[in-house]
Amino acid sequence: MAVTGPEIERLIALMSKLPGLGPRSARRAVLQLIKKKETLFSPLADAMADAAAKARICSACGNVDTQDPCAICADNTRDPHALCIVEEVGDLWALERAGAHKGRYHVLGGVLSALDGVGPDDLNIGKLVERLGGGDITEVILAMNATVDGQTTAHYITDRVSGLGISVTRLAHGVPVGGELDYLDDGTLAAAMKSRRPF
Amino acid sequence: MAVTGPEIERLIALMSKLPGLGPRSARRAVLQLIKKKETLFSPLADAMADAAAKARICSACGNVDTQDPCAICADNTRDPHALCIVEEVGDLWALERAGAHKGRYHVLGGVLSALDGVGPDDLNIGKLVERLGGGDITEVILAMNATVDGQTTAHYITDRVSGLGISVTRLAHGVPVGGELDYLDDGTLAAAMKSRRPF
Repeated sequence: MAVTGPEIERLIALMSKLPGLGPRSARRAVLQLIKKKETLFSPLADAMADAAAKARICSACGNVDTQDPCAICADNTRDPHALCIVEEVGDLWALERAGAHKGRYHVLGGVLSALDGVGPDDLNIGKLVERLGGGDITEVILAMNATVDGQTTAHYITDRVSGLGISVTRLAHGVPVGGELDYLDDGTLAAAMKSRRPF
Repeated sequence: MAVTGPEIERLIALMSKLPGLGPRSARRAVLQLIKKKETLFSPLADAMADAAAKARICSACGNVDTQDPCAICADNTRDPHALCIVEEVGDLWALERAGAHKGRYHVLGGVLSALDGVGPDDLNIGKLVERLGGGDITEVILAMNATVDGQTTAHYITDRVSGLGISVTRLAHGVPVGGELDYLDDGTLAAAMKSRRPF
């Protein structure tokens, strides 16, 4: 049953499709927006129209930006030899915020998953093979999530890369910085012990 | 550090101000929007501009609608004698979805709170007194939250209403429908026992 105007109901219905928001929190968010019309609602509506018009998927790496190629692919000061492969754009942004990688990226757009019916053709892998064949790239860094599907995907890409003379590395497993041993799972502790480094 | 275009960063910053979303979930939501550009992002941008332009606060009751007076105040089939007083617009919508009230509403826009420095002048109480003085209303239903501040506000309004010949009622306290006794707090159980009804 509609309790308010159709335009507001429609906004609530669309907002509730965002990850992290359900019908109830979408309603709360919209009421908050209307309460803060000048400081939040109008700027957000403008920003949304602006971003919707300008957001682009980078045709080279799959990153999201307002330019194509994206700022990272277009930046000639970055190392053209190291390519970091990630599952999603959010992972790329996380590595970039950490300043962890000085080369370029490649976004797969997901992981291989027999259960969900995701095969190599559903991912951005054709483009990856093309980039690897270009000859510039000497190291591929696998930065998939440490999940079963993530590691399956990493193995698949390793197979595709082998024979091209490109070295393949993956992110280290270990104790998170600031983490407490007592709260870590056995697999992480075993991996951290196995990969221990001279102090 | 900006990892993407300024328009997208700005959208993330504004989205993260919504209740229920922080910086991380705002980023996830925006990436989801860009992934579903045609089915979600563009419709949401349109809906937001539309709602931002049309949303109104009802000058009679404080409800949010796209018309002023709101659909409830403008609906002549509703009981003009019963006025239900709520804290926030969300509470009005909740009662309306439940079909719990056939009269009109009055939204205070908050509660009295000495701690937060909220006094009667900060709430929509002047307008309420004016409506009550109009002579149409014979019953006021207090539907504030069952919190200390909510009940303080209810007492304050009861004082303001006394002498006008208007009967004042409040929502019943008791066991929520579908609720289990073992999980209820002592106050609710005591109130439910005290207000027990013939079966």
